[in-house]
Amino acid sequence: MSNFTSELIGTMILILLGDGVVAGVVLKKTKSENSGWIVITFAWGLAVMTAAYIAAASGAHLNPALTLALAMNSDLPWADVPIYIAGQLIGAFIGAVLVWLHYMKHFEATDDQAAKLGVFATGPAIRHTPSNLISEIIGTFVLVFGILSFGLTTFGDGLKPLIVGLLVVVIGLSLGGTTGYAINPARDLGPRIAHAILPIKGKGSSDWSYSWIPIVGPIVGGGIAVLLYQLLQN
Amino acid sequence: MSNFTSELIGTMILILLGDGVVAGVVLKKTKSENSGWIVITFAWGLAVMTAAYIAAASGAHLNPALTLALAMNSDLPWADVPIYIAGQLIGAFIGAVLVWLHYMKHFEATDDQAAKLGVFATGPAIRHTPSNLISEIIGTFVLVFGILSFGLTTFGDGLKPLIVGLLVVVIGLSLGGTTGYAINPARDLGPRIAHAILPIKGKGSSDWSYSWIPIVGPIVGGGIAVLLYQLLQN
Amino acid sequence: MSNFTSELIGTMILILLGDGVVAGVVLKKTKSENSGWIVITFAWGLAVMTAAYIAAASGAHLNPALTLALAMNSDLPWADVPIYIAGQLIGAFIGAVLVWLHYMKHFEATDDQAAKLGVFATGPAIRHTPSNLISEIIGTFVLVFGILSFGLTTFGDGLKPLIVGLLVVVIGLSLGGTTGYAINPARDLGPRIAHAILPIKGKGSSDWSYSWIPIVGPIVGGGIAVLLYQLLQN
Amino acid sequence: MSNFTSELIGTMILILLGDGVVAGVVLKKTKSENSGWIVITFAWGLAVMTAAYIAAASGAHLNPALTLALAMNSDLPWADVPIYIAGQLIGAFIGAVLVWLHYMKHFEATDDQAAKLGVFATGPAIRHTPSNLISEIIGTFVLVFGILSFGLTTFGDGLKPLIVGLLVVVIGLSLGGTTGYAINPARDLGPRIAHAILPIKGKGSSDWSYSWIPIVGPIVGGGIAVLLYQLLQN
Repeated sequence: MSNFTSELIGTMILILLGDGVVAGVVLKKTKSENSGWIVITFAWGLAVMTAAYIAAASGAHLNPALTLALAMNSDLPWADVPIYIAGQLIGAFIGAVLVWLHYMKHFEATDDQAAKLGVFATGPAIRHTPSNLISEIIGTFVLVFGILSFGLTTFGDGLKPLIVGLLVVVIGLSLGGTTGYAINPARDLGPRIAHAILPIKGKGSSDWSYSWIPIVGPIVGGGIAVLLYQLLQN
Repeated sequence: MSNFTSELIGTMILILLGDGVVAGVVLKKTKSENSGWIVITFAWGLAVMTAAYIAAASGAHLNPALTLALAMNSDLPWADVPIYIAGQLIGAFIGAVLVWLHYMKHFEATDDQAAKLGVFATGPAIRHTPSNLISEIIGTFVLVFGILSFGLTTFGDGLKPLIVGLLVVVIGLSLGGTTGYAINPARDLGPRIAHAILPIKGKGSSDWSYSWIPIVGPIVGGGIAVLLYQLLQN
Repeated sequence: MSNFTSELIGTMILILLGDGVVAGVVLKKTKSENSGWIVITFAWGLAVMTAAYIAAASGAHLNPALTLALAMNSDLPWADVPIYIAGQLIGAFIGAVLVWLHYMKHFEATDDQAAKLGVFATGPAIRHTPSNLISEIIGTFVLVFGILSFGLTTFGDGLKPLIVGLLVVVIGLSLGGTTGYAINPARDLGPRIAHAILPIKGKGSSDWSYSWIPIVGPIVGGGIAVLLYQLLQN
Repeated sequence: MSNFTSELIGTMILILLGDGVVAGVVLKKTKSENSGWIVITFAWGLAVMTAAYIAAASGAHLNPALTLALAMNSDLPWADVPIYIAGQLIGAFIGAVLVWLHYMKHFEATDDQAAKLGVFATGPAIRHTPSNLISEIIGTFVLVFGILSFGLTTFGDGLKPLIVGLLVVVIGLSLGGTTGYAINPARDLGPRIAHAILPIKGKGSSDWSYSWIPIVGPIVGGGIAVLLYQLLQN
């Protein structure tokens, strides 16, 4: 598999499972309706684990903020960055389309436009640009700093994806309550484009005014993580 | 242990634990009554983990959709397929009988016929044939594609059953809200036959009109997973 | 550490953490009051994991039903059986005393006598001797059959206690709703004796009429597991 | 990385994630509001796991009670103890400041002063000095005794932080309901100082009269664990 295909397929699975759990919890008449934060956070973490095994061929970035951080850290040639990000965005878009197909009757059964958007894109619990940016920066800082640190441990048994998945579980549990923890520009932008394009019954605005925060915040947070990591290693 | 016995015992344990958790959550007067989606999904995932260790001798398919997919992928001779599926179906039937024995007084304490059927067989949250089929196809696609991908990782420490179990947890959390995620024809058909045959007090219909969907959907989903997997490996 | 001491300390930790979670959930004014079945089952499973690491020197049986089963399977000399069981019972008693010390003010704040007994000993959701016996037999069958099967897998990395802990999680989730899953005579008898002896404020009966079921059921269930396991291996 | 820096960074991440989950659960208008004890305990456990990978260079004590216990057990020179504890306290303080930044709008949206203090510092469910001390002693005894015992197992695959994290999960689930399980003087004192200093809107008392219990209790509990462990090894 090429790096492009690997990132595309991995991110598709990530969003299918990740946006899928939000659909299952917030849409009406599902068996998992209102099943709570523990369901959402464990599913997102295990979605990362699953996608990371599937996209092992390309290193399973699945996240432009991580791709940029690894390039900054000289773990990836800069020339590969656009290929990775393209695969991630296209994969995220396809994953979101699959979630819509999977839960179509439940989108129809749901009136709440914010819930329908929430399946695809993150949004703040309290809208406040500096605070929302800070939340995305801090969340992604922990993600990237953690992954860089895990690189120092030998996981001889192929268990690194499990540990990274558990890291995403705890970021969600502990830091997700403010902005819904995008911590990944592709996770937010790809599905938001799907929300804008797809003929979802009774959908509302795609809230483009917020859409730059889950892009800029994660990129800044990942960059800070690399700088601190390099500072501490020297 | 022969492959037949191994699949039979493994699937028996899978259904005892898997249908058991549904009984504990939906039947009346249990200590686990109404304990929620997180309980159901973790139990099914850990049931797969447990059964996969127990049925290691035969490769622990425990699922006709997986057996067919592995035969398609040349990981199993086609001549073995009927033996595997027979063991799985018989094991699933026996497991369902054990669940009935275990929770018998709670079946008696429960009036809701749909709840009693729900212990044995899956059913849709919103009945709609194309959507229900699509859900089972997508869920099983993730299961089989994941398992094929895990085959590329070295789990030197005997931990592959744990990772497959966690994969089943996330499929349940993220995609189970629509049809109850059979993603396994034996998991649905074996216990449904048990429901039809057993003298369960106050039981209703076994809903045979739905029963083909958790057979056809998983087989199609597993097939698509093999085709995509092979396409990507070449 | 001698086998006796190892089993004593391990079972003490098992009951401190296992009965501890029940105290936290059912007694009044705790921070974990009414936190549900997922809390109880994960805590018991991780209690087994923790105790199994601590009692590794003696093989971490922590359970007379397992000790007897392993003796039946020729994994332990019969002469060692009384030493193991004595350590387990004394350890379970001490663990229960520690739970009482830990939660003493909450025992005082709780009026419900059944809740106070429930911290120490199991009791049936629906009292019915044959059904209750069957539940303990089936639950312990899965425990012992699972542990025997895990013996066929190489866990080179010291992770067997984790897998056994997760097995106990799923037994609780799936089969615990009927009798509260003693699946271990020492887990029930040791703390029940503590309940009878300790000056717990406002305590009621220790329900001795039920106490033989969590002894006989697990021993029978473990025995059946060994017989089936040996049958299948030959 | 020096031991000082490693402990500082690790404890910073521990408190960011650990105090972060409390903020997410107890403050108003978060997406994780009132999501329960299972969310709090899993997040604290996985916070320890994450921080332990990040602070591997110094052995990841992250806890003065553990540092003192390891010095007592001759696993650390006494001269290093002040360096470790200084790093832990400063890291805990910084982590608490980050939690305040992350959840600032939610602190503003919350009137309950006890909830705001609860993000930073532990407090008893029932205030009673001997019982509260005993709770912290028992909780930390299990933590330190468990970690010393894990040292006898070979975790060749870098998974010890995962197992220690799961140990912290079960301590929280089973023993945390009384005092909120500080089991770590730095975890309580560092953030309590932050609470006292930071200009948190509408904050109340920092409850200094309780603050010695989560310092003395853990140190005593860790000491008892070392004494028992040494007694049993000889």
